[in-house]
Amino acid sequence: MKTEFEIIEKYFNKKSKRAIKGIGDDAALFEKDKKNYWAISTDTLNEKIHFLSNTDPFRIGWKAAAVNVSDILSMGASPLFALLSISLPKPNSDWLDKFSKGFFACCKKYKLELIGGDTTKGVLSINVTILGDVNKKNALLRSGAQINDDIWVTGELGLAALGLEIAKQKVMATSTLSKKSLNALEKPTPDERIIEKISLFCNSAIDISDGFISDLNHILVASKVGAKIYFQDLPISKWIKNNKKEDLALYGGDDYQTILTAPKKMRFKIERLIQKNKLSLTRVGQITNNRKLLIDHYEKEVKLKKGYDHFGKK
Amino acid sequence: MKTEFEIIEKYFNKKSKRAIKGIGDDAALFEKDKKNYWAISTDTLNEKIHFLSNTDPFRIGWKAAAVNVSDILSMGASPLFALLSISLPKPNSDWLDKFSKGFFACCKKYKLELIGGDTTKGVLSINVTILGDVNKKNALLRSGAQINDDIWVTGELGLAALGLEIAKQKVMATSTLSKKSLNALEKPTPDERIIEKISLFCNSAIDISDGFISDLNHILVASKVGAKIYFQDLPISKWIKNNKKEDLALYGGDDYQTILTAPKKMRFKIERLIQKNKLSLTRVGQITNNRKLLIDHYEKEVKLKKGYDHFGKK
Repeated sequence: MKTEFEIIEKYFNKKSKRAIKGIGDDAALFEKDKKNYWAISTDTLNEKIHFLSNTDPFRIGWKAAAVNVSDILSMGASPLFALLSISLPKPNSDWLDKFSKGFFACCKKYKLELIGGDTTKGVLSINVTILGDVNKKNALLRSGAQINDDIWVTGELGLAALGLEIAKQKVMATSTLSKKSLNALEKPTPDERIIEKISLFCNSAIDISDGFISDLNHILVASKVGAKIYFQDLPISKWIKNNKKEDLALYGGDDYQTILTAPKKMRFKIERLIQKNKLSLTRVGQITNNRKLLIDHYEKEVKLKKGYDHFGKK
Repeated sequence: MKTEFEIIEKYFNKKSKRAIKGIGDDAALFEKDKKNYWAISTDTLNEKIHFLSNTDPFRIGWKAAAVNVSDILSMGASPLFALLSISLPKPNSDWLDKFSKGFFACCKKYKLELIGGDTTKGVLSINVTILGDVNKKNALLRSGAQINDDIWVTGELGLAALGLEIAKQKVMATSTLSKKSLNALEKPTPDERIIEKISLFCNSAIDISDGFISDLNHILVASKVGAKIYFQDLPISKWIKNNKKEDLALYGGDDYQTILTAPKKMRFKIERLIQKNKLSLTRVGQITNNRKLLIDHYEKEVKLKKGYDHFGKK
C-alpha cells in the first residue's frame, strides 16, 4: 500500500522548467516580478475524511479557506486570490448559505478574494486553490533549514486531534478545553501576523497538516539535517500531558500551525517581536547535523514515519 | 431547485477588487505584467457524473487536463501551469500509472507543466487548476461580442454527447463514427492552433462545456446582444442529422469546442487562415441587436435555458 507521498513521488513529481519551485513544498513558486514570487497551492476537504458529516457548514467553509491560507503563510507569502470548487449531492440552500458565509468570513480575515471556481454534482467535496505573493528574499522553503537554527512553532500542538476525539465522543475534557479543541479542529485560524513579522528572519517553514513530527521531518529530509526537540518546551496543554495524550500533539494531524527555523543570532530579535506583538510562538528545539530527529525526555521512541497519512494502515 | 449558475450568482459571485475579471467567464484574469494577464481556471471531474466508471484511466487523466486547457484557450490564452488534486478510494497502482500517463500526455501536447496538487482519500474525483497567460489585447471575454459579428465554432458539434449515448449503449452508429464520438467524449483535444492564429481578430469567445446553445447564450447575455444561427451551416455529422439527433449538437454537453465571434471585416482574413492552416473552424451565424437567439430552418423551438446543468431536472 503506497502512502500519499509515495504516490506523488512515483507518479506525479515531474520537474518543472518554468516554475521556481514545483511539487514538494507547501506551495509552488513562480516568477511574479523582479522582486516577488507568486505562491500557489491547493487543498481538498472531503466529507468523512477531512470533516465529520455533522460539522456546521459555516465551519466547513471557513476551514476550506483557512487550510489553504495556512499553506500560503508557511511559504512566507500573503494570500491574494482563491478559486473554490464544490461537489455536492444536491443544491441545499441552507447548507450553501452557511458554507458561503463561513468561506467569505475567512476570506475577509485574510484579505483573500474569490475569483473563480466550479460547482458540480458529486459526493460532498471542497477544493480550494489559493494564490499569494512573497518577496523573493522572504520565501520560506522546506529545504532552507540550516544547522544550529532554532526551531519555532506557532500556537498549540495537538488541539485539533484532541478536538476530533472529543467530536467523536472518544474522550471528555473540560468544557473550556473542549470548545478550544473543537475550534482548532473546525475553525483553524493561522496567525498571519507571525509570518508577517518574523518570516524575514527565518530560513525555512512548513505548516502542520500531517502532524508535528511528520511535518518537521519533511523539513529535515528536504534540508538534509537533523533536529533535537526539547519536549518540555513544546506548546502542549496541561490536560493533554496529564492525560498522557502527548501523541496527539506529536502525531496528530490538522493543527495548521507553522514550524519555522531561524538562525540562533535572530533569537533575541524574534523574542522581542513575540513580546511586543503578543505572538503565540515558542522555541522548541534546534537543527542539528546528525540527520536524526531526537526528542529529549520523551519516554517513547520517535516514530518518524508516523503522522497522518490518508492511505496509511489504521 | 437551483441551477449551477443560480448557486454561483446567489452565494459566490462577489466582486473582486484586485482581479481584472473575477467569477463569470471561462477563466479569471489578473495582472501579469504591462503587456499580459494571467488567466486562471478550475474544473472538477467526478466519477459517474463526468465520466463513466469503466472509462480508461489514461483517458480520464487526459480529459482532466484537456477540459481545463479548453477554458484557458477560450480566453485567448496559452496554458502554462497546472495543479492536480485527486481524491481516490485507495491507491491503485495500475489506475494511477495509466491516469498519470494520460494526464502528462495531454500536458505535453499543450506545453503545460504540473507544479502542485493534493492527493487524498475519497470518492474518485479529479480537480485541475490551470494558469495561462494572454496578451492584454488578445484576451477574449464572453462580454465582448459586437452586433454584426460573425459567429464561428471550432470542430464538430454533438460528438461527445453522441459518444455518451454510444458508451451507454443507447444508440448504435457506424464504427468510424462510434470511435470518433468516444474520442470526443473521453479524449477531447481542443485545437490550440486556432486560438493562436485567430484570437487576435476576435471579439469574444466561450468554450462549449454545457452545450452549444447554452454556452452561446452566455455570450449573448454577457454581451447584451442576440444571435441568428444558420442551422444548415452548423458542423454536425450527417449521421446525427439523418437520425434526427440534432439536439445532441445543440444541447449536448462536453464538446470542448470553442465559439468565437469576430467582426465581419475579419471574415476574409479568417477564411484565408483556415485554408492556409487547415483549421477546423466554421462560420455559423451572426450577432444581432434583438436580444434573441434564432435558428433558421430549425423545426423546433429553441430552448434557451436548456443545456447541461448538473442539478437540472432530468
